[in-house]
Amino acid sequence: MRRRILRPLAATTAALALVAGGAAGWAATGGSPAGPLTGHGDARRIDGDQTSTVRKALTGGHARNVILLVGDGMGDSEITVARNYALGAAGRFAGIDALPLTGQYTTYALDRADGLPDYVTDSAASGSAWATGTKTYNGAISVDVDGVPQRSILEIARANGLRTGNVSTAEVQDATPAVLGAHVTSRSCYGPVATSATCPTNALENGGLGSISEQLIGTRADVTLGGGAKSFGERATAGRWAGLTLLEQAERRGYQVVTDEAGLAAVRTADQRTPVLGLFGSGNLPVRWTGPLATPTGGGEAAVRCTENPAYGSAPTLAELTTKAIDLLDDTGSRTGFFLQVEGASIDKQDHAANPCGQIGETVDLDEAVQAALAFARQDRHTLVVVTADHAHSSQIVYPGTTTPGLTRTLTTADGKPMTVAYGTAEVGGSQDHTGSQVRVAAYGPWAANVVGLTDQTDLFFTMRDALRLDPDAPAPGAPVIRSIGLADGAVLRGHRTVRVVLQDEPRQTVFSLVRDDQVLASFTRTGSRPAVTLDARRYAAGPAVLQVVVTGHDGLVTSRSVPVRISHR
Amino acid sequence: MRRRILRPLAATTAALALVAGGAAGWAATGGSPAGPLTGHGDARRIDGDQTSTVRKALTGGHARNVILLVGDGMGDSEITVARNYALGAAGRFAGIDALPLTGQYTTYALDRADGLPDYVTDSAASGSAWATGTKTYNGAISVDVDGVPQRSILEIARANGLRTGNVSTAEVQDATPAVLGAHVTSRSCYGPVATSATCPTNALENGGLGSISEQLIGTRADVTLGGGAKSFGERATAGRWAGLTLLEQAERRGYQVVTDEAGLAAVRTADQRTPVLGLFGSGNLPVRWTGPLATPTGGGEAAVRCTENPAYGSAPTLAELTTKAIDLLDDTGSRTGFFLQVEGASIDKQDHAANPCGQIGETVDLDEAVQAALAFARQDRHTLVVVTADHAHSSQIVYPGTTTPGLTRTLTTADGKPMTVAYGTAEVGGSQDHTGSQVRVAAYGPWAANVVGLTDQTDLFFTMRDALRLDPDAPAPGAPVIRSIGLADGAVLRGHRTVRVVLQDEPRQTVFSLVRDDQVLASFTRTGSRPAVTLDARRYAAGPAVLQVVVTGHDGLVTSRSVPVRISHR
Repeated sequence: MRRRILRPLAATTAALALVAGGAAGWAATGGSPAGPLTGHGDARRIDGDQTSTVRKALTGGHARNVILLVGDGMGDSEITVARNYALGAAGRFAGIDALPLTGQYTTYALDRADGLPDYVTDSAASGSAWATGTKTYNGAISVDVDGVPQRSILEIARANGLRTGNVSTAEVQDATPAVLGAHVTSRSCYGPVATSATCPTNALENGGLGSISEQLIGTRADVTLGGGAKSFGERATAGRWAGLTLLEQAERRGYQVVTDEAGLAAVRTADQRTPVLGLFGSGNLPVRWTGPLATPTGGGEAAVRCTENPAYGSAPTLAELTTKAIDLLDDTGSRTGFFLQVEGASIDKQDHAANPCGQIGETVDLDEAVQAALAFARQDRHTLVVVTADHAHSSQIVYPGTTTPGLTRTLTTADGKPMTVAYGTAEVGGSQDHTGSQVRVAAYGPWAANVVGLTDQTDLFFTMRDALRLDPDAPAPGAPVIRSIGLADGAVLRGHRTVRVVLQDEPRQTVFSLVRDDQVLASFTRTGSRPAVTLDARRYAAGPAVLQVVVTGHDGLVTSRSVPVRISHR
Repeated sequence: MRRRILRPLAATTAALALVAGGAAGWAATGGSPAGPLTGHGDARRIDGDQTSTVRKALTGGHARNVILLVGDGMGDSEITVARNYALGAAGRFAGIDALPLTGQYTTYALDRADGLPDYVTDSAASGSAWATGTKTYNGAISVDVDGVPQRSILEIARANGLRTGNVSTAEVQDATPAVLGAHVTSRSCYGPVATSATCPTNALENGGLGSISEQLIGTRADVTLGGGAKSFGERATAGRWAGLTLLEQAERRGYQVVTDEAGLAAVRTADQRTPVLGLFGSGNLPVRWTGPLATPTGGGEAAVRCTENPAYGSAPTLAELTTKAIDLLDDTGSRTGFFLQVEGASIDKQDHAANPCGQIGETVDLDEAVQAALAFARQDRHTLVVVTADHAHSSQIVYPGTTTPGLTRTLTTADGKPMTVAYGTAEVGGSQDHTGSQVRVAAYGPWAANVVGLTDQTDLFFTMRDALRLDPDAPAPGAPVIRSIGLADGAVLRGHRTVRVVLQDEPRQTVFSLVRDDQVLASFTRTGSRPAVTLDARRYAAGPAVLQVVVTGHDGLVTSRSVPVRISHR
């Protein structure tokens, strides 16, 4: 593993200067303009024909590593708000704005009832889209509109022998990190308690895959860093670790659990034997900057500057988490590379809260992480870096000093000029909502061309998968191998029907569950390497259902399959 | 000149089907998806690695022609709103979405008072930016923050012997078409009356360049098509055509004036001897589609579909105007190519009015024009096509069926699903406002790579200029040639100072005007090939000013220079 200076520490210093609205000492690839903007050509960002520059950016070949950085809710408006404030309108983010190839992608979700478009996505449906290549409904965590689990890019990367990482400033159970390692019907099913209540078909006691937290433990990314310690205090309801807290389970399963910067710094390796679970807060991690919320009259009030969040303390920045994750995942001695997702989660959360300084600070925080990823990729030369958002959001830049029917706030930017940010999708005190615009997707490295033009969020899954040449059907290492299930997709069940599963080895247990519309119709636990269940279709109402088969191995690793069926009484 | 079938007529038929929300028969490069979106990979827009496709799109070499298509106010949100409605969320515009190379650019204007950024631009400042490469203040028509005229890309193209066209669905004096052929301190100075009142330093009677309409006549694009006949009914206040209406002036100066589709169809050639001025309406041209406005409660009301605008009548569509302009401008027998700008103006105007159907219909209208331009460019292979917006706007897609503190309206889309569009930047009855987000810029053909990544609106001027290899200093054909002005930029005037101008030929007249802050301090008319004026600096307050020199030739063509000076009494 390479050692590397924690470059973001310098970036942090720069960011602190930015809080005061100054043009800080960013890297040569970004920063604020030096002179006036009033003359002919003064505001240019490029100089001369960049055809050959773009051609050179089309590196060709495949990628050894992929680093996906997601600004949650970071639409083009949010990027512009942050750039104007932190660097001035003519400034350039050294990370976010430095990706050479760019495009737009569509983010729509699907309506669970009819499978047709739902024009405003949430982070669960959109994350599931790039994580699995399958469109789904709002609230779904890497399950399709029928609730059937869809294998994630992280799970596939791991099954192909790549090292994997999952980093967020949110709780690790929050939608964007969750989609990489869990499959539940509702994003709120962080721990066993919520899962039993809200996602019964996913609950362990019903033969499901368990809560998001439990599934993240089982997915066993080499590196998982974020907040969300609280849910790990809950206890498993069934299975091998029933009665233990999830944190105890993680430790028993070999995880190195760390909870602060010093603990993380002490970690030297992260692998399948001893993966790292860093939980740096009970809930979401603190935000970098604070300032007054937008209010009905805020746009017309005196312009303000953002301030550092006093509650931020000594928590690691996203760039520090990113750099550490790269350090742990990169292994030039290995045949295989890594997949790493990094989420700046609270751009979205602060946009929901109509807090312009909050969202700007988080965008700057993400930009530092992008800088760290690009610094690695430029040196490595075999890494695809993608920077995008999961959806657009509320904040809009309106004429300075104006108010709107919604909420506004005027800030003094790095230019020393007033910028008014408006939030118009919810009333005072409500949560400002996502919006449905296409958003920017940008990339550097092999396969970066696949973000150019108009794509869909699901295209990103295939771009990452194929850039890494992953076999989507590779078996997960250590997990039970299902050789066959004696039931075809779409099978019609009438009367008695015996379903037999053939496994490679004898597992701890196999649970068969018949589920419909988030309800468990029946659940049967079996042992042995050829478990079988006989279903009596006459006991259940006619109509579509799904047969879940969840096989748990002796080391606790799980393999599951879901077979859509139709129950008929004719 | 090539003859070409009016392809947009077919597209118009398709668009009519779209009004009813159906998935119409678009070209193979666009349309609605065929099947369900619920399965793995169903929503993909690309298939396999497009590195070589993007590489092929980097054609290299220079452009013979440039076609710039501007959707006024067509931010990413407006594009998405229109696509969702007309084609469904998974649909693809055959024009707008078909450009192979894409990026984002910044649109900020400058504050006239201090030259620092103003974060929300209007169409005048943004149009001036790509037209001239110089950032300026809101309201400025191709003058800089000091009011000094900046030469436009159309004027430069014409001076370099290219044929030129200027097409809009707005009045031809509206900001976006105006920036190509006029230089006034305020966008409202359409005709002599407004110019005398609001832009006195531009008024002919004060030695200025005249109103926007008068300057458009003088700029003499080969093809000018749009609305705005009303201002041409005003009479010139000074100069050779004093007392004549501007329409009479245009006819005396050789223009073929047409006012309807039949008249335009009858035009066979357009050149410097007989340029075409098509004025298809008194004001702005009618919009294609109508529907209910957004209201405080609209989002929660029953979803509606858009309808054809009964007032549209038989007016030519933007695609028809575009195709006709290309037909008139393209001349394969000529050494030189053409520059053409096409504006879909009323996306913006309908967004201001919180009219979702209006803005959607205009976006579809622009898309047809883009299809026409791309069809030509694909055949020609030496044409750079750029599609972009001048600024982002208000409309946002919010959760279906919701209301906001502002205005909302729910539409039934081509998917048969509800889409709610929100406008939150102004109160009921007010004009919804522009927003400051970076916007999409997309291109096809030579130099298209120069829109990739993050650029500024002013970069587009240089991209178009350099793609066409234009000499920015080439003298305008037929206009007076100023050989020298005996006054350096920034000169300090003290006491008496004589300024002498050396001209190539004897003109009709030369007017010297000393102006400051939109006020004319003094104006002197001279004749002869070496006109001079002696200024007494003691008669004017100390401070910065601009000496305008406007030389009018015997055929009425004008050449001007502006020299920033400083008056000092010490």
